[in-house]
Amino acid sequence: MENIVIRYLDHPKLDDPIFVEGLPGIGNVGKLAAEHLKDELKGVKFAEIFSKYFPPQVLVQDDGQVKLVNNEMHFVQRGPGKDLVILTGDYQGLTPEGQYELSDFMLREIKKLGVRRMYTLGGYGMGRMVTKPRVLGAATDAELAKEMEKHGVVFSRGEPGAGIVGASGLLLGLGRLYDMRAVCLMGETSGYFVDPKSAQAVLEVLTAVLGVKISFSELENKAKQIDQITSKLRDIEASPEMPDKREDLGYIG
Amino acid sequence: MENIVIRYLDHPKLDDPIFVEGLPGIGNVGKLAAEHLKDELKGVKFAEIFSKYFPPQVLVQDDGQVKLVNNEMHFVQRGPGKDLVILTGDYQGLTPEGQYELSDFMLREIKKLGVRRMYTLGGYGMGRMVTKPRVLGAATDAELAKEMEKHGVVFSRGEPGAGIVGASGLLLGLGRLYDMRAVCLMGETSGYFVDPKSAQAVLEVLTAVLGVKISFSELENKAKQIDQITSKLRDIEASPEMPDKREDLGYIG
Amino acid sequence: MENIVIRYLDHPKLDDPIFVEGLPGIGNVGKLAAEHLKDELKGVKFAEIFSKYFPPQVLVQDDGQVKLVNNEMHFVQRGPGKDLVILTGDYQGLTPEGQYELSDFMLREIKKLGVRRMYTLGGYGMGRMVTKPRVLGAATDAELAKEMEKHGVVFSRGEPGAGIVGASGLLLGLGRLYDMRAVCLMGETSGYFVDPKSAQAVLEVLTAVLGVKISFSELENKAKQIDQITSKLRDIEASPEMPDKREDLGYIG
Amino acid sequence: MENIVIRYLDHPKLDDPIFVEGLPGIGNVGKLAAEHLKDELKGVKFAEIFSKYFPPQVLVQDDGQVKLVNNEMHFVQRGPGKDLVILTGDYQGLTPEGQYELSDFMLREIKKLGVRRMYTLGGYGMGRMVTKPRVLGAATDAELAKEMEKHGVVFSRGEPGAGIVGASGLLLGLGRLYDMRAVCLMGETSGYFVDPKSAQAVLEVLTAVLGVKISFSELENKAKQIDQITSKLRDIEASPEMPDKREDLGYIG
Repeated sequence: MENIVIRYLDHPKLDDPIFVEGLPGIGNVGKLAAEHLKDELKGVKFAEIFSKYFPPQVLVQDDGQVKLVNNEMHFVQRGPGKDLVILTGDYQGLTPEGQYELSDFMLREIKKLGVRRMYTLGGYGMGRMVTKPRVLGAATDAELAKEMEKHGVVFSRGEPGAGIVGASGLLLGLGRLYDMRAVCLMGETSGYFVDPKSAQAVLEVLTAVLGVKISFSELENKAKQIDQITSKLRDIEASPEMPDKREDLGYIG
Repeated sequence: MENIVIRYLDHPKLDDPIFVEGLPGIGNVGKLAAEHLKDELKGVKFAEIFSKYFPPQVLVQDDGQVKLVNNEMHFVQRGPGKDLVILTGDYQGLTPEGQYELSDFMLREIKKLGVRRMYTLGGYGMGRMVTKPRVLGAATDAELAKEMEKHGVVFSRGEPGAGIVGASGLLLGLGRLYDMRAVCLMGETSGYFVDPKSAQAVLEVLTAVLGVKISFSELENKAKQIDQITSKLRDIEASPEMPDKREDLGYIG
Repeated sequence: MENIVIRYLDHPKLDDPIFVEGLPGIGNVGKLAAEHLKDELKGVKFAEIFSKYFPPQVLVQDDGQVKLVNNEMHFVQRGPGKDLVILTGDYQGLTPEGQYELSDFMLREIKKLGVRRMYTLGGYGMGRMVTKPRVLGAATDAELAKEMEKHGVVFSRGEPGAGIVGASGLLLGLGRLYDMRAVCLMGETSGYFVDPKSAQAVLEVLTAVLGVKISFSELENKAKQIDQITSKLRDIEASPEMPDKREDLGYIG
Repeated sequence: MENIVIRYLDHPKLDDPIFVEGLPGIGNVGKLAAEHLKDELKGVKFAEIFSKYFPPQVLVQDDGQVKLVNNEMHFVQRGPGKDLVILTGDYQGLTPEGQYELSDFMLREIKKLGVRRMYTLGGYGMGRMVTKPRVLGAATDAELAKEMEKHGVVFSRGEPGAGIVGASGLLLGLGRLYDMRAVCLMGETSGYFVDPKSAQAVLEVLTAVLGVKISFSELENKAKQIDQITSKLRDIEASPEMPDKREDLGYIG
């Protein structure tokens, strides 16, 4: 078996498309953002990527059918230089080697599709509650970084301190070997739970950069549900009499 | 050394055979079921599969001879469209990569044998005692799922929630790439110990589907032995005075 | 770099040689036994095996020179059918894949040397103090097992229950694919520390089988040192007043 | 993707160059030493090494640009037999296999550059505070060991007891297969924190051997900062009344 298998369902004609990646990670920010963008822009799935670097697992859908865990590419046709290729997925590679192989594979595939510009989406774990998430950036060149700063992206010395781990970072790092210009947009997030608010912050920047308008109501609904939990958490944290009750919130994974 | 080595002891003529898989897993349900079916139908071993994805281990048999850990294929000749190939084994692959490689290897081998239909058998861990195990299902297509529902198989939204991990799932997920139609039958089980009762529930469905009759007395005997232990456990759980005595049952692994 | 590299220092002429393996493992029984045999019979090192499946480590010798961790083959010329090839080493393969690769590699090399008969040496962990270690056996065929029983080797139903893990087992399991007849000799050992007494028990059987005489005084000396520690341990275990003092013996690793 | 990728930025003409390696490890001694030497001698980066054996990570630089984690080679032109090639880097290989592959790859590259002599730099963890770090040595041949002893390098029987793990050891061990003569210089270090003083001790030996003069003021500054922390630690250890306060120094990683 090949280490990575791609199955094309369609071969869309794309003109100088822009690549957007959002896979599971801290706060699931990247995955939430990319899936929301795909849904709002009615992206059409055109390729499935299977790999032995993913878990040996199938998901069972509501009709009882199985789906081998994968990554998927969707296209959105918006015109020359504006077409999008959006990557979403169930998992990132499980091992460092798998991460490198998958990112390199992806770069070769999207190079064939004509991609020269990429946006990778992710979360930046703060280890504390975040009320108004900033969007941090990293880029393949200083000019792109400056361009992003105009859209409110924060390029902050020493942030993120530990660098960027996983596909969102590797696509930039390896992308330089493929002459890809790319930006990584990271929404601040506590890292304690799935964070739709951070995903929205990231998407607000990305849609402004791309010049598209989308509704955020679905993300806002998800965020409200999470907010109900986090506000409880904040209440408890703010309450001096019960400093140790945080452990009771067993339902926050 | 090849990653996976198959050694054919025989090349049986099989007519449109059906493949049945049962390897070690939760409650050992799949392994118990497949071995019992093989024993009852007097399946004949015709192939051994060795692999560096299995543990580096030999088992010592009663006469002092060693047996390298393996997977084995057995055949049962029942006539066109009814022949069986039954896969049993000591282990599944130890790593995700090994799981993918082994399942893909198996699919290529059984494709050569003419297999187009598969049943994979396993357990579904409930994390609590199960008195009357249901049999949950997953399938490669919705039509098959409906066919199975007639035999009492439960296709339940959100079950199994985490999907199916290991060979029983992968054979379905990868099987779609080989045009295999397949069903995974999962017997509910506590997950705390080996569960012959769950294996029997799975086999009652499978034998009805296959149109064969077998005795379950051996599985029932094994189940009785386990029941003696589990009934003790239930007694203790039901007894309000001694809520913490469960730990004393050290012999339940 | 090749996964496994062999460097021949010499190409001895051997006539139908017998292979003896003893690598690190439980109680270091196999390694102690094979090294003692090699020393007593003045075995000559003729090949070094390096591998990326060993730790990335060099050992520093007393003169400050480094030695890359390896396995080594030594020969002893005793006449047709009596020549020996003795394998010793610093490590076994670190991963299951490495274990399979290394054993398979070794089998191919010794096949070229004309080996048809093998003895693999190891320890059998009892999890309790052992005063008079028995030597348990496992073999590639029942005839060999019977032959060994005459030399006092115990072939006991259900022992070792978990099979044999590592090179001593794999060489037998894979050896069958190379038409090698082989016996694994396992000395009972507590598994708590290095066990020269168990190594001696194994060697007493092996030398009787091979028809050679060697001195055991060095192993006996090492055993005395260990005995001083273990007798303390037994004293403490036998003393009802201080049941929990065993933890004080921090020097027993 | 290749397992290891080297990208040459320049092809400097070097005459019988000497190779110096210093990668992250115990106390970061080797990395600190090699980077300081490179900085002081104004080494010029001429090659970058990327690998799937490194973490799947990019570092974010102060201007927001990403840098894929790597190893780097720098050259210093000092004349025939005195030219230097200095290897620094963000990481060593993550797995044993990666360590072997990377060291072997490096040896083949520097062989092409004409290297015949190597110095690998590292720390030797003592597990206790070290006031005046000695420099321990290991070598590919006894003659080199003697040569180093003249420069104060300690070749001490049984030190380091566990051998040398990682690139500093492997380059020597595998280097013998490439006819490289090499010395590993290990500065004693507590192993509790980054240790510029130990790096200086190593560099004092190396620069004497190489016949170069460099300033150590930057290392001394770093050492002073660390000393302020360690002196606190010593105070606490010396204070009999508060034997358990060491845990309070949470900022010492």
